[in-house]
Amino acid sequence: MNGWLGWTEWAPYLSLFGLACAGLIYLYLKKQPVGTDVMRELSEAIHDGAMAFLKREYTILAIFIVVVFVVLYTALNPMTAVAFLSGALCSIVAGFIGMKAATRANVRTTQAANQHGEAKALSVAFSGGAVMGLSVASLGLLGVGIFFHFFGDPSKASIISGFAMGASSIALFARVGGGIYTKSADVGADLVGKVEAGIPEDDPRNPATIADLVGDNVGDIAGMGADIFESYVGSIVATIAIAATASVGLLNKLSGGAIADVGQARMAAMSLPILVVMVGLVASLIGIASIKILEKLSPQAALRYATYIGAVLMLAGSYIVVGKLGLSSDVFVAILSGCMAGIVIGLLSEYYTSGAPVRRIAEASKTGPATNLIAGLATGMESTALPVLGICAAIFLAHHFAGLYGIGIAAVGMLATVGVTMSVDAYGPVADNAGGISEMAGLGPETRKITDGLDALGNTTAAIGKGFAIGSAALTALALFSAYTQTINTIRSGAGLPNILISVTQPIVVIGMFIGGIIPFLVASMTMSSVGKAAFKMVEEVRRQFREIKGLMEGKAKPDTRRCVDISTKAALREMVLPGLLAVISPILVGFLLGPEALGGMLAGATLSGVLMALMMSNGGGAWDNAKKYIEAGNLGGKGSDTHKAAVVGDTVGDPFKDTSGPSMNILIKLMSVVSLVLAPLFALIVR
Amino acid sequence: MNGWLGWTEWAPYLSLFGLACAGLIYLYLKKQPVGTDVMRELSEAIHDGAMAFLKREYTILAIFIVVVFVVLYTALNPMTAVAFLSGALCSIVAGFIGMKAATRANVRTTQAANQHGEAKALSVAFSGGAVMGLSVASLGLLGVGIFFHFFGDPSKASIISGFAMGASSIALFARVGGGIYTKSADVGADLVGKVEAGIPEDDPRNPATIADLVGDNVGDIAGMGADIFESYVGSIVATIAIAATASVGLLNKLSGGAIADVGQARMAAMSLPILVVMVGLVASLIGIASIKILEKLSPQAALRYATYIGAVLMLAGSYIVVGKLGLSSDVFVAILSGCMAGIVIGLLSEYYTSGAPVRRIAEASKTGPATNLIAGLATGMESTALPVLGICAAIFLAHHFAGLYGIGIAAVGMLATVGVTMSVDAYGPVADNAGGISEMAGLGPETRKITDGLDALGNTTAAIGKGFAIGSAALTALALFSAYTQTINTIRSGAGLPNILISVTQPIVVIGMFIGGIIPFLVASMTMSSVGKAAFKMVEEVRRQFREIKGLMEGKAKPDTRRCVDISTKAALREMVLPGLLAVISPILVGFLLGPEALGGMLAGATLSGVLMALMMSNGGGAWDNAKKYIEAGNLGGKGSDTHKAAVVGDTVGDPFKDTSGPSMNILIKLMSVVSLVLAPLFALIVR
Repeated sequence: MNGWLGWTEWAPYLSLFGLACAGLIYLYLKKQPVGTDVMRELSEAIHDGAMAFLKREYTILAIFIVVVFVVLYTALNPMTAVAFLSGALCSIVAGFIGMKAATRANVRTTQAANQHGEAKALSVAFSGGAVMGLSVASLGLLGVGIFFHFFGDPSKASIISGFAMGASSIALFARVGGGIYTKSADVGADLVGKVEAGIPEDDPRNPATIADLVGDNVGDIAGMGADIFESYVGSIVATIAIAATASVGLLNKLSGGAIADVGQARMAAMSLPILVVMVGLVASLIGIASIKILEKLSPQAALRYATYIGAVLMLAGSYIVVGKLGLSSDVFVAILSGCMAGIVIGLLSEYYTSGAPVRRIAEASKTGPATNLIAGLATGMESTALPVLGICAAIFLAHHFAGLYGIGIAAVGMLATVGVTMSVDAYGPVADNAGGISEMAGLGPETRKITDGLDALGNTTAAIGKGFAIGSAALTALALFSAYTQTINTIRSGAGLPNILISVTQPIVVIGMFIGGIIPFLVASMTMSSVGKAAFKMVEEVRRQFREIKGLMEGKAKPDTRRCVDISTKAALREMVLPGLLAVISPILVGFLLGPEALGGMLAGATLSGVLMALMMSNGGGAWDNAKKYIEAGNLGGKGSDTHKAAVVGDTVGDPFKDTSGPSMNILIKLMSVVSLVLAPLFALIVR
Repeated sequence: MNGWLGWTEWAPYLSLFGLACAGLIYLYLKKQPVGTDVMRELSEAIHDGAMAFLKREYTILAIFIVVVFVVLYTALNPMTAVAFLSGALCSIVAGFIGMKAATRANVRTTQAANQHGEAKALSVAFSGGAVMGLSVASLGLLGVGIFFHFFGDPSKASIISGFAMGASSIALFARVGGGIYTKSADVGADLVGKVEAGIPEDDPRNPATIADLVGDNVGDIAGMGADIFESYVGSIVATIAIAATASVGLLNKLSGGAIADVGQARMAAMSLPILVVMVGLVASLIGIASIKILEKLSPQAALRYATYIGAVLMLAGSYIVVGKLGLSSDVFVAILSGCMAGIVIGLLSEYYTSGAPVRRIAEASKTGPATNLIAGLATGMESTALPVLGICAAIFLAHHFAGLYGIGIAAVGMLATVGVTMSVDAYGPVADNAGGISEMAGLGPETRKITDGLDALGNTTAAIGKGFAIGSAALTALALFSAYTQTINTIRSGAGLPNILISVTQPIVVIGMFIGGIIPFLVASMTMSSVGKAAFKMVEEVRRQFREIKGLMEGKAKPDTRRCVDISTKAALREMVLPGLLAVISPILVGFLLGPEALGGMLAGATLSGVLMALMMSNGGGAWDNAKKYIEAGNLGGKGSDTHKAAVVGDTVGDPFKDTSGPSMNILIKLMSVVSLVLAPLFALIVR
């Protein structure tokens, strides 16, 4: 027995250490000054709104969790149900911690910008993000580590998948709910405030501004955190599941023939993903700590180098771990290709949301909103090509060097440094909020300039983060898909049935593929409609307040912000239910009615159309946003021109694209895959 | 030998009879009065513009045809090259005939409306469409019939596929070129005319009006005709190819064990598609003739019943043919399910472009263009679900009753009555043109009311026709895909290689699927951009003329319409090249570089994403159009209100959606499949 295998036992302790670091950063954060009374009030309003939403959201999800728990308990086995419950709870806790930190960090970032300038403001905002990043990584590792301790055996490993299913379920609801919340408030606030009344963004007279700022937190912090949490957990779980059911041939390939004992080779392959994310967590901690030194550079360079430091250290550590486990260095190449693909896809997203395409959209705005929209949609569609080719390259390399296992471990390689990448990601909405607070508190142009700069950088990091999330989702979904087919076939061969093939020459597979393909379109449609409907209500409420509250526009009376918060909250909670249930129930229906082959086809179809839609919507939305910003920077007539008005329309359409529907796609495809994987024993023996 | 097999020999003669009928209808049409000198002039301008475009388009395509001919001649075999050439030429001839008839019929429809009223106008417009419908059906049958005579033998049948490849190649260029032409003119004319200058549609003062009217012909007549022509030919060819390479088991299933001789069963299966379309052509002729009696009913009822008469007669005849060939009546069920699916999908398209979704979009316009766009996009996405389930049902039934062969013959069943369905379809743009001519010639409100009514009906028939085109494309692409894999496997087993599986558990297949999935997004992006760019130029030219030509707005000077025609022509010819080449070259590249499995995955991925995009874009675009019309009918503030202005933006974005990019998807997926099928021998033996 290889002694390095025992290191997985340390996973829970390391994750507790990570949580402790997050706690220390949080304490540092709390010590920072809050500023004036107005700022404190604003910050409390945002904090209370966000927390109230989270509590109501989790109350509704509790029903869902209990129902699924009971179903899994009775239909499958008790331990899978417990794993599911744990995954769901970890996701919820990560969301709570992140939200707490972010809503403490926003106002303190404003104050730091006001008192000390850019470097200090960056440091505070990044601390807020780091609490989230470390919580996500640590809680994920904690859960997987504990379950691996108890069920890290090939015959029981399928139980661990329940943990990922819990994480994914919460993630979809959180992403969809948060996305609807943030964009109904944002779109509603912009349509009346900026377009009709002609007042600036985040103006305190606009009743929807607080809801908008709350939305940044529930959407971009809690929603994004749940998203990444489940990608992270999903990639680890899928890799473990593939290793647990891997053929002897594959295991020989992985060990390069160096491990004679098949059982030991299998344990090495099962342990590797956990060890890699342990290395990744340590690397992330170092990357996060290095910001203290890097903050002397420009903010952009600081964030970028912190990410690169984390990635390089993770790769170096993984190389050692792969060797020590007795696995072939080819396996390391798979990790490397996943990591590289993540970076490349992130950079491509940056190009499409800031390069030449953005200027083309801005140019097209000269002839009105229609041509702006045509250009933006065309850009979104075009932007699917290169990232998908990047994903294909990663699949090709990972598979070439490490078989199907390679696809799983490549996804792990992409996600292992989530501690630092998520910190960078979560920094964005904190900076965005800080800008809003400085505007509402009337802190003057100097402070606003700093927060605007940090916010603009946050948009870039968000674009990179989204590309990264899509790339990792694609690989994770494929890994879960492989785990699904292997699990089905393991069960079938145990029952003396032939393997399933999932060949697209079988009509039942094609039917599954077509049904899978429409699910992302339906979820995108539902979430777009929800934002549209809720924004419509928000517009009417803001119009009403402008009309009925005397002295509001003159700044003599205060708006009723609570009603706007309430509209967003109710809409988000009501509208998140249907898409979430669709994602959970549709694979179950197809599995039972059409059999495991059709379900396999369904997962393939959903993954394909989900990835394409995610890229189109995220990149298109980001490009519209930045085309508007490009014009606002004084190009093509600048703010207030007809060209600008046309660009605002595109930006408004892009809002639900990039922050509601697009990001939901990532979770959707993983959730469908993980539900299929966990429930595979129920469908495995169906023959059509 | 079954005597009924010999009936396929009559196919060329029957098709000549069909062409003769088209000729007679054309002569009847030419005899109708043209009206005033102004009308004659307008009609000549449209005719000349359309013909000039077609000639230039075909000149460019000649280069492409020659190159592909040489490649096929040298790399594959001379007869396939000849078949390719014939398919391309037949498509071109069908386009020419249809265009001639349509540009003769438009002005005569106006005059009929002016002199005799609705019934006569319907009859003239429908005659114009019927020439096109019969030409498409007859030329398709002519080509396939002749090639079947020479190569209707299992070992040589692959040569016939070349005919479909020729038809598909021309179709994609014609659809894309025509689509860009018509929408650049339409969008450009609307943006300046309706939105900026506030003059009505088709106003003679607008320099882009003639280009717009020419566009209706080159896009909706020539483009649509080429599209349907290749679907028709593709479905026949795919079914023949499946039958030619079918396993003994499948042939036994098809004959219900009634035909003992495998060779004879195979010949029956190969002959059936030709006999079904022969029956369909006769049924179509009867359906078209019945308009003479039906025209006493409302126009809508007349067109609908003519279609139903054609379908019922075709089904009855096919039932007899299936029995006489000695095939199982289960095969008839496959034909029936295809025919029913076509009708259901058409009706679903009608719902999404005229029912509750349209009113929702109109409502959303109340808060501006952004919410209108969100609602329209959401509707388009939602509208993918039910039609795809309809396609799935057809696949399931067809396969259940007749194996893979069932999918091919179901597509044939859907398309066999193209003679009459295409006539109904092509009637729409003729009526649209007639309305434009009556506006430009100042014929007064009575005439305009009749042509407007016919035009509105044309929009409905167009929506149904588009749904139908997508459904048939999906089935045809799947049939071609089955033919592709069977052909590959036949060649491989001849060379002692194992069959390919195209299982989505193989990473190379997944890679192919992802690459295939992005092609429709890229083509949609390219064509959207092309329309955007050309519309931009058109806007600038129209603005220039309004500014520089003195007295134009007062009606004292004439606009320079030729320059606008020139802008559309040049843009269409330049921009059609890249998407067309992408569609032809990408499967070849994937086949050679990644092998036949990856190419199979590519076709599956492209079919899935192409069908989804086609539905989203066609239905979304139609819904936007009709939401605008709903408001123009006096609802929600009516014409000129802010709500209407918002709806015009959506309609403008919807234009390239429904008439350029969306319809291109159908041809794209079939073209990729048929290229793969024809070139299969070149990839078949590659092992990766």
